Amino acid sequence: MAYLGDPVLADDLLFRPQHSIIDQSLHAKLGGFATNGDGFGIGWYGSRPEPGVFKSTHPAWNDDNLREVAGHIRTPLLFAHVRASSGTPVQRSNCHPFRHGRWLWMHNGSLAMFPEVKRDLLTAVDESLYPKVEGSTDTETLFFLALTFGLVDDPPAAVARAVGLVEETGRRRGIEYPVHMTVATSDGQSIWVFRYSSEKSTSSLYYSSDVSQLRRLYPELDALDELGDDTRFIVSEPLRDLPGAWNEVPENSWAVVRRGEQEIHSFEPAGSARA
Amino acid sequence: MAYLGDPVLADDLLFRPQHSIIDQSLHAKLGGFATNGDGFGIGWYGSRPEPGVFKSTHPAWNDDNLREVAGHIRTPLLFAHVRASSGTPVQRSNCHPFRHGRWLWMHNGSLAMFPEVKRDLLTAVDESLYPKVEGSTDTETLFFLALTFGLVDDPPAAVARAVGLVEETGRRRGIEYPVHMTVATSDGQSIWVFRYSSEKSTSSLYYSSDVSQLRRLYPELDALDELGDDTRFIVSEPLRDLPGAWNEVPENSWAVVRRGEQEIHSFEPAGSARA
Amino acid sequence: MAYLGDPVLADDLLFRPQHSIIDQSLHAKLGGFATNGDGFGIGWYGSRPEPGVFKSTHPAWNDDNLREVAGHIRTPLLFAHVRASSGTPVQRSNCHPFRHGRWLWMHNGSLAMFPEVKRDLLTAVDESLYPKVEGSTDTETLFFLALTFGLVDDPPAAVARAVGLVEETGRRRGIEYPVHMTVATSDGQSIWVFRYSSEKSTSSLYYSSDVSQLRRLYPELDALDELGDDTRFIVSEPLRDLPGAWNEVPENSWAVVRRGEQEIHSFEPAGSARA
Amino acid sequence: MAYLGDPVLADDLLFRPQHSIIDQSLHAKLGGFATNGDGFGIGWYGSRPEPGVFKSTHPAWNDDNLREVAGHIRTPLLFAHVRASSGTPVQRSNCHPFRHGRWLWMHNGSLAMFPEVKRDLLTAVDESLYPKVEGSTDTETLFFLALTFGLVDDPPAAVARAVGLVEETGRRRGIEYPVHMTVATSDGQSIWVFRYSSEKSTSSLYYSSDVSQLRRLYPELDALDELGDDTRFIVSEPLRDLPGAWNEVPENSWAVVRRGEQEIHSFEPAGSARA
Repeated sequence: MAYLGDPVLADDLLFRPQHSIIDQSLHAKLGGFATNGDGFGIGWYGSRPEPGVFKSTHPAWNDDNLREVAGHIRTPLLFAHVRASSGTPVQRSNCHPFRHGRWLWMHNGSLAMFPEVKRDLLTAVDESLYPKVEGSTDTETLFFLALTFGLVDDPPAAVARAVGLVEETGRRRGIEYPVHMTVATSDGQSIWVFRYSSEKSTSSLYYSSDVSQLRRLYPELDALDELGDDTRFIVSEPLRDLPGAWNEVPENSWAVVRRGEQEIHSFEPAGSARA
Repeated sequence: MAYLGDPVLADDLLFRPQHSIIDQSLHAKLGGFATNGDGFGIGWYGSRPEPGVFKSTHPAWNDDNLREVAGHIRTPLLFAHVRASSGTPVQRSNCHPFRHGRWLWMHNGSLAMFPEVKRDLLTAVDESLYPKVEGSTDTETLFFLALTFGLVDDPPAAVARAVGLVEETGRRRGIEYPVHMTVATSDGQSIWVFRYSSEKSTSSLYYSSDVSQLRRLYPELDALDELGDDTRFIVSEPLRDLPGAWNEVPENSWAVVRRGEQEIHSFEPAGSARA
Repeated sequence: MAYLGDPVLADDLLFRPQHSIIDQSLHAKLGGFATNGDGFGIGWYGSRPEPGVFKSTHPAWNDDNLREVAGHIRTPLLFAHVRASSGTPVQRSNCHPFRHGRWLWMHNGSLAMFPEVKRDLLTAVDESLYPKVEGSTDTETLFFLALTFGLVDDPPAAVARAVGLVEETGRRRGIEYPVHMTVATSDGQSIWVFRYSSEKSTSSLYYSSDVSQLRRLYPELDALDELGDDTRFIVSEPLRDLPGAWNEVPENSWAVVRRGEQEIHSFEPAGSARA
Repeated sequence: MAYLGDPVLADDLLFRPQHSIIDQSLHAKLGGFATNGDGFGIGWYGSRPEPGVFKSTHPAWNDDNLREVAGHIRTPLLFAHVRASSGTPVQRSNCHPFRHGRWLWMHNGSLAMFPEVKRDLLTAVDESLYPKVEGSTDTETLFFLALTFGLVDDPPAAVARAVGLVEETGRRRGIEYPVHMTVATSDGQSIWVFRYSSEKSTSSLYYSSDVSQLRRLYPELDALDELGDDTRFIVSEPLRDLPGAWNEVPENSWAVVRRGEQEIHSFEPAGSARA
């Protein structure tokens, strides 16, 4: 889940039991909270350029400190992630979102047979970035590959090269479908999302329509009045109850949303030869 | 879940993925592991008269130390419990099973509106026992009431008086159905189980038939050969695949199982006036 | 440690390695961080009337979430506490500071032979407050006694009655010196501190002189320029390097500090008969 | 700390407050328990060829599960380690001892400027072993290098090559003293210890004299009668009170102790060119 809009309390996004579009968009995710118990994390932008992160291996609904802190964090851009481990240890350094400088990164999906390709991939990480890798997950590896290939300057191109490298490396090892991902990353101003899998069968990814449009569709929903016009939500599960409110990011695409703007493009991994 | 029989590795009872009666009896429970993330605990009898306990607020399937230890604990009597908090803090001192001297105690269900009656109930705990209460749960309070009323000497009578006191106290506060419980307790030799609720609508409770009988029913199940004749399992969910293997403890009853023996009796709370 | 003054980042108070008066006043405490590993906590007032709390059983210097959050909390009034357990379990619900409504409460010292008197003391807690007790410590019990006796309306009188009750109860049990305490409590505007022990031999307690006075004493200390005129620090250990900077709260006294004001009075427990 | 001798309860080695040689040998270490709060671990050999490990990021003296388990683990060979982090995250996968198959490995000291050389060193780990690396520490990296170079077949030669590689790699990066280590490793039968640093100034390392010899020296010490003749302790701090009881492993040496035997040899890193 990601939020971009007027500054709100993290509490309102994560825990408030009101019948708002916020609550509804989170409902599926909070259902997930109940069954994904391998850690969670939030990342948010505040008064500093570097985002804060709060991550824990306790289930989110058990973490009293998270509830406390959520009532004191006001932010225009929040990432929240619940982790279902695919085998790597359940420890704070493996929880999403990951951070480097101003950037946050989170991921659903996996790099297939990651233990087989981990060494090759980490060796491709830029030597100055390598010591910053803290955990042992595929997600963090993909993030550092994207950073290596220029995430800070051109996110779509950098992710294309990172994914291209993972596919080449995987196929050299006989892995048929090396990549399955929905990724969200941000510099504090914009959020880029990517939906791609080698198998062309990726988990879903949605972002909310602009709020003024929603207000026209649902004049009876008071909750929409409280949100700024530029509010965006990004979620992995569609919201059934509000047709027209959610736009699917198509298979093999990337999108960027920022205040008042959005773009969708097709996504294709870049071969390292072409890099 | 409780096991009574020949000494086995806790690992075999908790984690082994084999298609044995053990695995099947645990299947429902392990399903529960996936969704109950508010802590777990095991208690076991070893070479000392006092049982050991291992409890944690991490989900059981995430606890590497539990997996390690389970491979080194050999025991003839094991309790295992997964907790879904009903509001009290998620902390080790609130995880089941509870222990006092040689006794283990665990509980599914709840004392209704526990915060309203907690003070009255704790005040009724014997003064010498009171300082041993470590956590803040209804289950531990019920355990210490039973200890106060003579659990060590006559478990069914003591539990009857404890439940009687909870019902009187609750009703004085206008609580219609003060008690809902399935309890298991042991001194290391026998396991007593109780199934009772003020509303006469208690969660289910089962114990396994004796193994020799099961072998006659299911001669094709090799796994049954590995278990001693006196093996007993106690579970809260019935096992669908093996009709004849499980005996339900009826509503408003208590049972005791020990090696080679079992008894079932009706259970009735004892008024404190009669105490 | 407590801070009262212009809003600052908690980070600056807790972790900044600069040679400021802040750093120096914390130095002894941070030395304590290294050896007191039984949990810590902070409480702070932000934009809401209720303070936030962040508590953990991990040593403070290991808690990455605390470091993150400290960089995003701006507050005019912060409590910080490092716990050395006197026997009660090391769990979040036993960490200081404790909170009730707008009030924070923390404590160094102990109620002697607490397990012996715990039942009597908890029974004296107001019935409506009793269910709010979450942990099992002497400190939280003393806090709820003070709340029972009117902390919200008249802190010194309420603490006097709470301490009086503990002394009477203890002496009835043959405890010679029932109370040893330095307490700090706040409603978000003022901080009250108490220094008292039955034995008349209490741990030390200091508050900082007003900053304008310090500036006259130490014109060469640039760090003093960054602090508002009304800044107050409360610490348990004196600061040797800055004579004149710290005022000791005398044995058997209470003090209140708020912006621009301070008072010291003698403290005497109130007999419950007189209550 | 390591123990080799007749099977004893881990409890007796770690927590018993008796005035025995065991207690005394642990005293320095337990002093360390109080100030090293970055995690601890034990490893022990039981009925299986693979050792068990129990590791936690809570301080050892706070871990109730460790105390429980220690009373149920009987072992002839125990490793115990208290960690003071040198910068890598405080998480279970970074706690000692490390295990691979039948082998345990623990380490005091550090590889200088580890982040600078980590990539080169991990790249030298055998490709089949690489996916087994779970944490991010210098100690685990050194362990996997030793495994790569044949630890299972010839521990001293393998460690010599691993250390040689670290020194070569470090010096290529301009690191003057790349290695500072006291290492203990075991296959369940023998314990090998290594004391070496590039600077020739290594932390101390001691093993106990054989017990029959100690009995002659100290006939008045009853505690010595309880220990088997072949008992060995390995500690990093000398025991002042029992001159003659401890043998220092000299600078630049390795030793092996097993039941009834001990050898000391000089240690020299092996250049990879010679490998």
